[in-house]
Amino acid sequence: MQHCDALIVPRWCVPVVPAGVVLEGHAVAVSEGRIDAILPLEQAQARYQPSALIERPDHVLMPGLVNAHTHAAMTLFRGLADDMHLEAWLRQHIWPAERRWVSAELVRDGTELAIAEMLRGGTTCFGDQYFFPEIVAQAATDLSMRAVVATPVADFKSSWAGSAAEYLQKGTDLVHDPYAEHPLITTAFAPHSTFAMADESFAALRVLADQLDLRVQIHLHESAAEIRESLRDTGKRPFARLDHAGLVNRSLLAVHAVHLDDEEVDRLAAAGVSMAHCPKSNLKLANGVAPVAKYRSAGINVALGTDGAASNNMLDMFSEMQTAALLGKTAADDATAVSAQDALDMATMGGARALRLDRSIGSIEQGKLADLVCVDFDHFNTRPVYDVVSQLVYATASTQVSDAWVGGRHQLENGRLTQIDGHELVARADEWRDRIAASDKHVQEVQ
Amino acid sequence: MQHCDALIVPRWCVPVVPAGVVLEGHAVAVSEGRIDAILPLEQAQARYQPSALIERPDHVLMPGLVNAHTHAAMTLFRGLADDMHLEAWLRQHIWPAERRWVSAELVRDGTELAIAEMLRGGTTCFGDQYFFPEIVAQAATDLSMRAVVATPVADFKSSWAGSAAEYLQKGTDLVHDPYAEHPLITTAFAPHSTFAMADESFAALRVLADQLDLRVQIHLHESAAEIRESLRDTGKRPFARLDHAGLVNRSLLAVHAVHLDDEEVDRLAAAGVSMAHCPKSNLKLANGVAPVAKYRSAGINVALGTDGAASNNMLDMFSEMQTAALLGKTAADDATAVSAQDALDMATMGGARALRLDRSIGSIEQGKLADLVCVDFDHFNTRPVYDVVSQLVYATASTQVSDAWVGGRHQLENGRLTQIDGHELVARADEWRDRIAASDKHVQEVQ
Repeated sequence: MQHCDALIVPRWCVPVVPAGVVLEGHAVAVSEGRIDAILPLEQAQARYQPSALIERPDHVLMPGLVNAHTHAAMTLFRGLADDMHLEAWLRQHIWPAERRWVSAELVRDGTELAIAEMLRGGTTCFGDQYFFPEIVAQAATDLSMRAVVATPVADFKSSWAGSAAEYLQKGTDLVHDPYAEHPLITTAFAPHSTFAMADESFAALRVLADQLDLRVQIHLHESAAEIRESLRDTGKRPFARLDHAGLVNRSLLAVHAVHLDDEEVDRLAAAGVSMAHCPKSNLKLANGVAPVAKYRSAGINVALGTDGAASNNMLDMFSEMQTAALLGKTAADDATAVSAQDALDMATMGGARALRLDRSIGSIEQGKLADLVCVDFDHFNTRPVYDVVSQLVYATASTQVSDAWVGGRHQLENGRLTQIDGHELVARADEWRDRIAASDKHVQEVQ
Repeated sequence: MQHCDALIVPRWCVPVVPAGVVLEGHAVAVSEGRIDAILPLEQAQARYQPSALIERPDHVLMPGLVNAHTHAAMTLFRGLADDMHLEAWLRQHIWPAERRWVSAELVRDGTELAIAEMLRGGTTCFGDQYFFPEIVAQAATDLSMRAVVATPVADFKSSWAGSAAEYLQKGTDLVHDPYAEHPLITTAFAPHSTFAMADESFAALRVLADQLDLRVQIHLHESAAEIRESLRDTGKRPFARLDHAGLVNRSLLAVHAVHLDDEEVDRLAAAGVSMAHCPKSNLKLANGVAPVAKYRSAGINVALGTDGAASNNMLDMFSEMQTAALLGKTAADDATAVSAQDALDMATMGGARALRLDRSIGSIEQGKLADLVCVDFDHFNTRPVYDVVSQLVYATASTQVSDAWVGGRHQLENGRLTQIDGHELVARADEWRDRIAASDKHVQEVQ
């Protein structure tokens, strides 16, 4: 008999790779943080002596979901300003709140709240883009969460950095120490947007990204106004500026990409750029609907992201998958477009590819990291079960996630976080609320 | 001291009427199934001696949600056929499954599963439209759920009736006995669609609806194809046929109404017709997006419905509110359109008006029936709380519903159904699944 740390025995297993496969009567063995084997239950029982036998008789085992784009700390601004135009939302509420409140302490508390919410809902890896990325990385490390932490870069001053050069310097520091070879954290650069970056800043960024072999992600063509204003101010569309800067390549993650012309779609596909689709945020800010089926047909890798909690307002990848599938059909005027399988693929392998982690996460395959999730189908809304993947995408609430493992560590067990004190997190969030609300006129008017 | 059956003490109370109000430190007294008073906690403690004191210190008390359009029994077809064009979905899967399987037994079991799912998720009243309406009414009565049961009417033969005349006769029987003056059940007529009804059938329906003073609801302008084919076959748009039949009046509920021209919008508004908006179903079948903000501005009362579980696939009014608000903004190209408050209003008073129950349900007002729901905000995704209504619409999962009362009866208590054996319901659903799956090629291919 062979030892393994855990033998997980679900009713169904959806490995995502190979595509379309739903296994019944199988078990997954986990050892030293990795997937040791996926095999029929009888063979598993004959081969393994597990330290922990995890029986989940009404559950689906699937890869942990990958939230490819969020601003985790913004959970503390959730519901601060809704039902507003992008400009008013940003300039009158979010930016003033950020200028006044963003600090290492806020980022720490907001990121921890976000990690708790994500783990509870089946997300085991997130791509973050926010100020104080060293605090985000530390919070993720402390809570044993997988994260791709992107250093913000911009020409504007924030409480974290005063110039593009300072952002880049701090980002470079983060790459070198202590996250060069970390089991949970990888790093990237995140220029905010083309309107926040002069050509010289892009040039400096490119040199560094090439030297350090770092991914770059940017909010790109999120709104029609962004494109219009770029044309007015620079004579170029944002994408053209990025291309001119030499940043359109396999290392790029284009976030939002709601509005692309056919030439841009072809160029993105040919260059191997990934795209982070954030359908709920795009709807909420009335920015339009990205034609995801078209992008995928063109060969673009599409990942899914929730965006920050100030424009969603949940960090719920099940809800995001569902919205992506439903909305993708309408955008394509074709009910067969963006199938349940497509949505699941975007939320797992699509995200892993976009974050350049597809060799280690995104599917249940032997040798990959054990980033896994169990979903309990013993609920009225997921019965009866004709098609497991349809049920995951169209009928499952994220609260049905019973278990989550990150690199083999059992972070959520039967609906309870094993390592995080939820009451304490909520208490800290409430304290921030009292302070922040006192400074925002809109909240005072609502009260 | 005055007696009351229950005194509910939440952290927040959102009465919906008056609009925009969020009360803190208030209690709601319930007696004999009705709301006795909404008053400050200290006054409540001085006035009432309650049989039950229900303290919910982290919760919102709100009116029970009204699902204005569903086909409850279709829970048993949930996930049977997804990612298909409307025509293939209906003609190759749903209709064959219905012809083969719909019976009093299936309707009973499917409706009970639906009622359990809806109560669990905060819905306390549903408008149903399906075969065997007498069984739907009986199931709702037995489980103490409020329902508006609409008798289907069509020219096509089903396992329940063979002709429009027979549908109408059976519907008339249902109205007279035993639901003339029932505390939970009201009745209506539901002609399936204009393509399922000859002009003579509409004429017979109208005579009866007028005589019995019954509401009429119909799937109307759900898809562009429906309008195109009506023009081809009859020379008229479906709406024009309905208008010609004299059915466009205050008693009409137009379900879907995705595609209306400006004249039709004005005519609906002037006639006092209500509209049941089913955004998730419309997206899933790629039928388009109803411009809800425009309808509401024109003065049309808009209700929300989940549609059946074969085209959604949840009966989740929180998810439906959220989708309605997010999608409504994009449809209007205006992030201020369909606010959280608007979505909540549609899911409560809008539904009550559409089902002609607005004098008894839809808001927390003295004298109204005690159809109430508590939502637990002590979850990561609903913290911090700046704006209670934003949180309900943009951040709440329906599983956070802790309590539900229907006419004062405590149906869901701390997350547990008090009157329904969930295990037994799920077991029956699983039995249907085995039988139905064996007859559907698509399910066999998936397996």
